[in-house]
Amino acid sequence: MLTVTYEQAVEAMERGLLRYMPQDKAHRFAEIFAGNSCDGVHSHGMNRYPRYLSDMDSGLCDRSVTEAERVSGIGGLEVWDAHFGVGPLIAEQVTRRAIELAKTHGVACIALRNNSHWLRAGRYGLMMADAGMAGLCFTNTCMNLTAYGAKQPSVGNNPVTIALPRKKGSLVMDMAVSQYAYGKLEIMAQKGEMLDSPIGYDTRGELTCDPGEICKSGLMLPMAQWKGSALSIMLDMLASTLSLGRTALEIGKPEDGERGMSQVFICINYAALVDADRADAQIEETIAFLASLKPVQGGKGVHAPGENLPAVRARSLREGIPVTEETWEKILAAGR
Amino acid sequence: MLTVTYEQAVEAMERGLLRYMPQDKAHRFAEIFAGNSCDGVHSHGMNRYPRYLSDMDSGLCDRSVTEAERVSGIGGLEVWDAHFGVGPLIAEQVTRRAIELAKTHGVACIALRNNSHWLRAGRYGLMMADAGMAGLCFTNTCMNLTAYGAKQPSVGNNPVTIALPRKKGSLVMDMAVSQYAYGKLEIMAQKGEMLDSPIGYDTRGELTCDPGEICKSGLMLPMAQWKGSALSIMLDMLASTLSLGRTALEIGKPEDGERGMSQVFICINYAALVDADRADAQIEETIAFLASLKPVQGGKGVHAPGENLPAVRARSLREGIPVTEETWEKILAAGR
Repeated sequence: MLTVTYEQAVEAMERGLLRYMPQDKAHRFAEIFAGNSCDGVHSHGMNRYPRYLSDMDSGLCDRSVTEAERVSGIGGLEVWDAHFGVGPLIAEQVTRRAIELAKTHGVACIALRNNSHWLRAGRYGLMMADAGMAGLCFTNTCMNLTAYGAKQPSVGNNPVTIALPRKKGSLVMDMAVSQYAYGKLEIMAQKGEMLDSPIGYDTRGELTCDPGEICKSGLMLPMAQWKGSALSIMLDMLASTLSLGRTALEIGKPEDGERGMSQVFICINYAALVDADRADAQIEETIAFLASLKPVQGGKGVHAPGENLPAVRARSLREGIPVTEETWEKILAAGR
Repeated sequence: MLTVTYEQAVEAMERGLLRYMPQDKAHRFAEIFAGNSCDGVHSHGMNRYPRYLSDMDSGLCDRSVTEAERVSGIGGLEVWDAHFGVGPLIAEQVTRRAIELAKTHGVACIALRNNSHWLRAGRYGLMMADAGMAGLCFTNTCMNLTAYGAKQPSVGNNPVTIALPRKKGSLVMDMAVSQYAYGKLEIMAQKGEMLDSPIGYDTRGELTCDPGEICKSGLMLPMAQWKGSALSIMLDMLASTLSLGRTALEIGKPEDGERGMSQVFICINYAALVDADRADAQIEETIAFLASLKPVQGGKGVHAPGENLPAVRARSLREGIPVTEETWEKILAAGR
């Protein structure tokens, strides 16, 4: 494992991206990859860079489209079309638009269709929270989970983010509707660890606690069984209906390539109505209460989602971002 | 078990409620209890009627307040105060308001503070869906679950509803952030059933699969462990911050009485922008796909949330609503 500075990471990735898009877009896209890694979200940061380049090479993502098109709107509600363009740049664009709309309309909702992978859901919630607003964003995905009650890939893990401003650093929940990412199951399998409940099927179609078997079959259940399954179905229907975009069914199975997601960005400018200082004090009270709870044996105690983000970010900026030799070599190679 | 007609149920409950509120409000409140039972949501229908009366007797809920007060607003975003009034009547009032706001502003968000128990979350989502809009509503609650990583009541189960119009009958997801309701655990314990994973602590503070032990301790975990815990914390912070209302911590523990919740009603008038027929066709495609999945052995197959609601409602209206002798006697006694 290497560590690289944030600036080194941005510069190296920007160099590779210049072959795909204009300098300003390449720079910003590099900042997104590096920023996500800097926040500790390695799976949707630099580690994903080589794959995003190959998705642009293959045409799964249309590198020539870096801005979405507004289709229609009424008040704080708008529908946009990403035309299969560069996911994170477009997601940032409509997030900025949602923040602007919420300034005038109090609340905004943008339904975006045909976007490519937006990398890290939390980024867009955080942008809203850093602007002093509450954020709620979600995306559908390809069918990477089995609906509860079935044994074949049939629903997405549909990441959801909820974010809130906090003076000490915005809070953010960023979670998919699965108990684990497949990548995490792979790591557990390598370590020989077992799951504490059967959250997927093996290749013979039996429920199993063996993470390696679930990776082999690709048949993981949504989190919380029927509850996660219901949530996944509703988020997919909501995102695809509001945007008149693609459903999980239309996006298809992971092996077909994940293309043209439907995404929703809700931004609530509550600070225009309530005393932001009092809201902040209320958040601090809850955080202090959670911190006061006696941790279960060997545990780390209870924290609010994203509470440790400022510390993680500060450490990455101070000590560098960890990256594997293999990934760093791919990043450098793309820029040569 | 008896069965009573919807009309008998409304008439009997209205009679009891007339001692608490004017006739028009008593009639509507009775319709809410009966309607929830009619939809199969017995836990938040007639079965809850005796308890709601005693909550009004004790002053936990202020029977004299049946309408919320608008505190402030900008565009589609408004803050309202329920002043500890009659929860479901007030929740319906602000839902109607959200629908009106969404007609003008495309999207509306009402943050309501100090409301009493709203009974069934799904009712408010369904009202929006039946008006041709998408609904997303949630409430915080008292601290009836243990945060993941702790062993004391510290977060709420914060029910969430997501609803969407469908020509064959609106779809609705209505779920708390716990794998089961305590009432369901009690029924499992009576039947001698065990849980398939340890979702709570026994009275000695050990994780257990015994539902009776979890009922005794009152120490159930949120669904999906850390994920449900994070979701619960964010929903609580979101609802209490947007409304500047009470947090789960301020509402307190179940034994203190659940009073003054913070609730959020988001309504999205997407039919103003997208072709509702195409959106409906898209929903039907997903439902047909889910229905085509081979069910796991002994299973009922996969359905969209609320898909069976029209059938349940029709059967209740045709064959009557089931109610225990004990509950029906209490309902009749309250009206004498």
